[in-house]
Amino acid sequence: MSGRLKAVCLLSGGLDSATCLACARRDGYECYALSFDYGQRHRVELEAAARVAAALGAAGHQVIRLDPGVFRGSALTGGAEVPKGRSPERMGEGIPGTYVPARNTIFLSFALAWAEALGARDIFIGVNAVDYSGYPDCRPQYIEAFERMANLATRAAVEEGARLSLHAPLMRLSKAEIVCLAASLGVDFSLTHSCYDPAPDGRPCGECDSCVLRRKGFEEAGIEDR
Amino acid sequence: MSGRLKAVCLLSGGLDSATCLACARRDGYECYALSFDYGQRHRVELEAAARVAAALGAAGHQVIRLDPGVFRGSALTGGAEVPKGRSPERMGEGIPGTYVPARNTIFLSFALAWAEALGARDIFIGVNAVDYSGYPDCRPQYIEAFERMANLATRAAVEEGARLSLHAPLMRLSKAEIVCLAASLGVDFSLTHSCYDPAPDGRPCGECDSCVLRRKGFEEAGIEDR
Repeated sequence: MSGRLKAVCLLSGGLDSATCLACARRDGYECYALSFDYGQRHRVELEAAARVAAALGAAGHQVIRLDPGVFRGSALTGGAEVPKGRSPERMGEGIPGTYVPARNTIFLSFALAWAEALGARDIFIGVNAVDYSGYPDCRPQYIEAFERMANLATRAAVEEGARLSLHAPLMRLSKAEIVCLAASLGVDFSLTHSCYDPAPDGRPCGECDSCVLRRKGFEEAGIEDR
Repeated sequence: MSGRLKAVCLLSGGLDSATCLACARRDGYECYALSFDYGQRHRVELEAAARVAAALGAAGHQVIRLDPGVFRGSALTGGAEVPKGRSPERMGEGIPGTYVPARNTIFLSFALAWAEALGARDIFIGVNAVDYSGYPDCRPQYIEAFERMANLATRAAVEEGARLSLHAPLMRLSKAEIVCLAASLGVDFSLTHSCYDPAPDGRPCGECDSCVLRRKGFEEAGIEDR
């Protein structure tokens, strides 16, 4: 027993969630990484998640399989084309086809269940409202509302007054700031995977929103993306 | 195309959720019933859910499989003994072993995803805060907080201003009132299943909280439970 506080950390295997996990570790938590297999196009990210969890010393890593039918209709699960070549400025103009209905709500609900089972009072999620794709469930008001709901939902919160905190340490950072933070925390960029529509060999497409934002972040940070 | 508004209705196969589905039908909705297979002891309730959905004319019925490991530790999934012989008065004194961490939050999250995919703006859940087992996620303040979060989470709510409503029509009814309401709406009690710990042949144990509350409800309503 380490005596450290436990935290559940959502981990997709991308740069943001890896940096978020590194933040939780920096803050002294014993980290339990949680990933989801929902038939995403970019399933190679699950291998990245396992590498990142190991490299950052997670105490546990769980991959929950979700019925792919749940997210039918999103470009991320093959229901539509992944948009390509959008400039970062245009990404804020609307919610793109890669939006997955209620995805963060479902992910956070499972994180809440695991946190309660582990006796953890802290959940980390790497959402970001600056250089982002326009998803509604990445905004601060959404995160605050989920936290409020979670504190009414669980036995720990109600019987023991154990306040649950939902941490989104990247919320107000630009992509370049996230890259710098990741570098300062020792995140190995080569282990992460960001592309929504990788080639069969796992290589990023370079043109989806996620690739465009990642490239912009590294360029502005003046750091090489290996 | 019926032209009717669509609603997603959580359906366990028990008396309360069947009555809740009947309420949604009464209110004119085209109903899409949603059940979960999470390795519960009382899996016979899934057969009841299918019978109830058909009998009440649901336009669709989906059973989502959840990794049973998610709910490990609850008496409902074999992690502990199901408490027996508790009086209804004692049930309000604490959260029992049948509490499943974050269960309603996970169920409602999937309902939210399905609602968005269907273009539905209404979700029904048969929770009840009067004759209940003391679960935190059955209280009105929890339901209100989930609804508030949901209205910040989805594309429909954010882009189209489509307000999502979470209906809990049984919230303030006693079990006897639920029985009377069910009878008035033509719910066939014989199709429903309430027991947390049924015998291998599906017969109710008669002693778990759910059986005790059901019996009390029928007795007070003066209606026979077939």
